[in-house]
Amino acid sequence: MQPSSRIRAILGGGASGWEVVHRARKMQRQGVRIIDLTVGQHEDPTPAPILEAMHASAMGGNTRYSDVAGSSELRAAIAERAAARTGAPAGPENVVVTAGGQAALLHAFMATLDAGDAAVMIDPYYVTYPGTIRATGGVPRITPARAEAGFQPDLDALEAACAGARVLLVNSPNNPAGAIYSDETLDGVAEICRRHDLWLISDEVYDGMAWDQPHRSPRALPGMAERTVVIGSLSKSHGMTGSRIGWTLAPEEISALIATYALNATYGIPGFIQDAGLWALREGEAIEADLAGTFHRRRDIAMRALAGRQAVRLSPPQGAMYVMVDVRATGLSGRDFAERLLEEAHIAVMPGESFGASAAGHLRIALTVADADLATALTRIADLAETLAAERAAAG
Amino acid sequence: MQPSSRIRAILGGGASGWEVVHRARKMQRQGVRIIDLTVGQHEDPTPAPILEAMHASAMGGNTRYSDVAGSSELRAAIAERAAARTGAPAGPENVVVTAGGQAALLHAFMATLDAGDAAVMIDPYYVTYPGTIRATGGVPRITPARAEAGFQPDLDALEAACAGARVLLVNSPNNPAGAIYSDETLDGVAEICRRHDLWLISDEVYDGMAWDQPHRSPRALPGMAERTVVIGSLSKSHGMTGSRIGWTLAPEEISALIATYALNATYGIPGFIQDAGLWALREGEAIEADLAGTFHRRRDIAMRALAGRQAVRLSPPQGAMYVMVDVRATGLSGRDFAERLLEEAHIAVMPGESFGASAAGHLRIALTVADADLATALTRIADLAETLAAERAAAG
Repeated sequence: MQPSSRIRAILGGGASGWEVVHRARKMQRQGVRIIDLTVGQHEDPTPAPILEAMHASAMGGNTRYSDVAGSSELRAAIAERAAARTGAPAGPENVVVTAGGQAALLHAFMATLDAGDAAVMIDPYYVTYPGTIRATGGVPRITPARAEAGFQPDLDALEAACAGARVLLVNSPNNPAGAIYSDETLDGVAEICRRHDLWLISDEVYDGMAWDQPHRSPRALPGMAERTVVIGSLSKSHGMTGSRIGWTLAPEEISALIATYALNATYGIPGFIQDAGLWALREGEAIEADLAGTFHRRRDIAMRALAGRQAVRLSPPQGAMYVMVDVRATGLSGRDFAERLLEEAHIAVMPGESFGASAAGHLRIALTVADADLATALTRIADLAETLAAERAAAG
Repeated sequence: MQPSSRIRAILGGGASGWEVVHRARKMQRQGVRIIDLTVGQHEDPTPAPILEAMHASAMGGNTRYSDVAGSSELRAAIAERAAARTGAPAGPENVVVTAGGQAALLHAFMATLDAGDAAVMIDPYYVTYPGTIRATGGVPRITPARAEAGFQPDLDALEAACAGARVLLVNSPNNPAGAIYSDETLDGVAEICRRHDLWLISDEVYDGMAWDQPHRSPRALPGMAERTVVIGSLSKSHGMTGSRIGWTLAPEEISALIATYALNATYGIPGFIQDAGLWALREGEAIEADLAGTFHRRRDIAMRALAGRQAVRLSPPQGAMYVMVDVRATGLSGRDFAERLLEEAHIAVMPGESFGASAAGHLRIALTVADADLATALTRIADLAETLAAERAAAG
């Protein structure tokens, strides 16, 4: 009478980096003021008008079982948004509403992976990816995107990893790297998928946070709509992390199968949350612009704060809620640097190693604190890095 | 580039019985007044005080990522309720909060079944059971509970089916049968699980709807707490179907694994829904009693309406939101009877065949319409059955 092998395998091995987070929480409970740059969500709660729309829906009686794939109005609004952002046609028949982007990811892998099938993913990566693949019985196959290439994947290495695989997973704008895939990268990804007859799962939950260029979805490239499952969410765009509302956008046949899985997974998501999401999509444009604008502004603050500083280098910060700081000049790992930073400067960051080997010697900075705190934190990070680098040079 | 075999297998074969539901909806759209006895949810929306508690929580700021396994307060309240109802000790470490009872079922099967493992389930059954087992790669193995035995499972047949299986799934109070497992059945189930070293998944979402006897959980039997996953939910007890809030109650080790799966499946459920559920458990006793009282009263109405009638027989209606009517004396299948009933009397019921072979020649009546409509419907059902039985006798 053992638990299933599959569920025991989800955790896998590998560093989590949560030690820094746990220690920061402990220091906070002891009364220490910490600038916390670890958290991938807005510092403010969900905007009140969205919550009011939710309550109005609930009090209006939308509290019964909902359509498992999502209400037709919401699916249409999601499809319309996707089509407008990417130029690729989409209709409600392509959409299944899920309990957040995480559920969308699991649904997508469930629909495309059988036990033992390989899914290729790119390092650095969002922490749940390997576990989510393993939860379906699939096998994560990890290929690097190097810091020196601005965390764009190496297309030759990617193609080699894709031989015999069934799925390729990409994420642009990228968490944790803040990178946005170049046209060359996206074209290469599409070409690899077509050549190896792969499903592409494209995690685009940060699609509204591309700072220097319009967001591009690989779904819009030739021959790709028929083999791509896009992951979307209102968590980041509308500050609805806790509402758990996301979606898959996929070919109609696979969408129908995903809906079948959704029936057995959750039996739909709350109708009043769907109505809140519909309100956010139809009338929440100012909210989305305001939230994105905050992260854009902070990206600029980060660039200014580190400009001209020695011993730290900012990976090109092109999108999403994060910037990635290279501290390898200090000779310390990201983890050791993060620990010293917490002890000495009371600043909590995620070590790059938490997101895979490619981000070793880096720190992920979530842009989720007030502007002044962010600037202070980055200055202290640069100061510590320069001190450490100078010590290293003196010792060498 | 095919969808996964697993997701294509979810639907399986078998009759759904939804044809009657679809036809009834169509007639309603055409303006025909239908008494709809097909729907397994309350006719009223979620009680307003629960929705107000939800809104207060959301406006109070509980809109960020929640604890994936559920808030400690909610887990404690669920454990306390389970312990009070069953006499078996339970603590928050045994509880994982999920997106409804359906998600709890899937989580439980994910934790206990690997690809190809058999899960034994009892016919008649809730419609999602086989698909949920198949969604994990497991194999449903179905064994009958005969109408003549009041839909109690035959223990010898059950034991034979359990040879080489990994999981046994039971559901008491039972949907669709309205049966509650006797002490003899529960003891036999426990004995089989111990002898064959099985996980028991005990779906107890109707635990507050046992009319003539206290609810008993097999988890409370000797040696069972260590091998039982109880499925619970606030959908039925507190009219929260659309909120999608349920739980697994399981040994601590398996609960930790289920939480790992939950992280990859949904990343927790909304904190404001958890707070609404906590309010319901702490302060919603009158609501639960009121809802259960309604179904209890309607169970009695059903018994009175059919007492002394020929050609229809009520299976012992002991609990849950349903009664099961035997119409085999008419010579018609449940499906054929349901179709005639809809055409001739404008009453929609689920054919027993929708829930497995054992309920063939039966109708499932959901007690989810106003008392007077229920009494009218049952009288018309008995009238039609008697007419058909008389015709059959005349023809014979």
